[in-house]
Amino acid sequence: MKINLRVHFYDTDLMGVVHHSNYIRWFETGRVEFLRTLGIDLNEMINDGILFPIVEVQAKYFEPAKFDDELELEIIPANLTKVKWEFEYKIRRAGEEKILVEGFSRNVFTSAATGKISRLPEKYFSKLA
Amino acid sequence: MKINLRVHFYDTDLMGVVHHSNYIRWFETGRVEFLRTLGIDLNEMINDGILFPIVEVQAKYFEPAKFDDELELEIIPANLTKVKWEFEYKIRRAGEEKILVEGFSRNVFTSAATGKISRLPEKYFSKLA
Amino acid sequence: MKINLRVHFYDTDLMGVVHHSNYIRWFETGRVEFLRTLGIDLNEMINDGILFPIVEVQAKYFEPAKFDDELELEIIPANLTKVKWEFEYKIRRAGEEKILVEGFSRNVFTSAATGKISRLPEKYFSKLA
Amino acid sequence: MKINLRVHFYDTDLMGVVHHSNYIRWFETGRVEFLRTLGIDLNEMINDGILFPIVEVQAKYFEPAKFDDELELEIIPANLTKVKWEFEYKIRRAGEEKILVEGFSRNVFTSAATGKISRLPEKYFSKLA
Repeated sequence: MKINLRVHFYDTDLMGVVHHSNYIRWFETGRVEFLRTLGIDLNEMINDGILFPIVEVQAKYFEPAKFDDELELEIIPANLTKVKWEFEYKIRRAGEEKILVEGFSRNVFTSAATGKISRLPEKYFSKLA
Repeated sequence: MKINLRVHFYDTDLMGVVHHSNYIRWFETGRVEFLRTLGIDLNEMINDGILFPIVEVQAKYFEPAKFDDELELEIIPANLTKVKWEFEYKIRRAGEEKILVEGFSRNVFTSAATGKISRLPEKYFSKLA
Repeated sequence: MKINLRVHFYDTDLMGVVHHSNYIRWFETGRVEFLRTLGIDLNEMINDGILFPIVEVQAKYFEPAKFDDELELEIIPANLTKVKWEFEYKIRRAGEEKILVEGFSRNVFTSAATGKISRLPEKYFSKLA
Repeated sequence: MKINLRVHFYDTDLMGVVHHSNYIRWFETGRVEFLRTLGIDLNEMINDGILFPIVEVQAKYFEPAKFDDELELEIIPANLTKVKWEFEYKIRRAGEEKILVEGFSRNVFTSAATGKISRLPEKYFSKLA
């Protein structure tokens, strides 16, 4: 799945390019949109007392994005189980082949009540099928 | 009261200066440190079910701060009552007279339980004296 | 002119709502999109050596936006001259009347070469007509 | 080398903990402070036309930091050559043994004039010895 993102002025730094931390935020935006297409609403998960903390993130930066670029973020579900979700990400300028940034994230599920690792309820897991 | 702040690389934008939104964040840092010196711990307030949402903020920008600048943030309590807190802020480079940015914030108090405006309990208000 | 914005997870703070500094960033997003519709490309201005620093910003917060809300940002050109641009902003949830946040910004124009205030070239000013 | 960091309100998200992207920003703060202690001033490097883009970043999150926590960031130079710098990072609460977050970054050097990879001048490299 792919979504488009516009680079904002506030995303840039004094090197004139997107600050590297912002791609990590965009990966999150991608996850949320991917899950929305499956019918998974993260507010509903939070209301059900399920949190989904990130436990690992990686990014490789090949070329910088610049202010006002229109980017295409590809979200690739790599491993979605009841105990963790792993996604990969590729960011390109819209309509171009060249990859600017590649990324990875892993999150687990925890109970808001206990703070402990928990398994994703069937109600949500079934939507990933 | 004054605190010192260092400008981080990630605070800058492609104009090579601090993005204007970041001063608004530093005002918050200043408020927290000011309240700490009075013995007011915002985590304790949150645990007591008291929230303190910002209802107005203003900033005037005279000169830009740059990466790695050491800044001095002056926090001026302007009007601290049981229903609202108003602060003013002045940001200078450490050791300089010239004001780079001036600001203002007003926050009220709300009950986390009801979401409604509430009065600050005496327990906290007495520390402002 | 109105644009829609989605509230990201990373826009929220521990009060469970959008951090107040982020609306200031969204005002900027709105300005950029407004200018785009007039045919004004800020990258072109920067390449022409014209910077457009913010000299004043204000925001009033009436009700908080929350994670995943779809917001509507109204951008109102209030005073656009060759020496300054003033915009007003109103943020609502998409499809609702109630205003969550109201804002204001003023920017001037400076020469990247001299750092001094400059007048907006006719090339750009004429597009505002 | 270790530096202390305070968690700001604006660093948190609606899970009540620090947003995972902010640790990536703090790694940068740590690099800057580490280089300062060696006498390397990044503004001087920029003025010399040397940029230092991040090409890879990783983070593993074991436990969350919370608002107002005082953190200790350990910066570990892992591989500092004329073509790349690799750092590792460990974040703990000040005075505690338990690691909250571990990280890694790699940056290269590029010429601002050509945009191409360049070797770090001896002037800077000699300070790493």
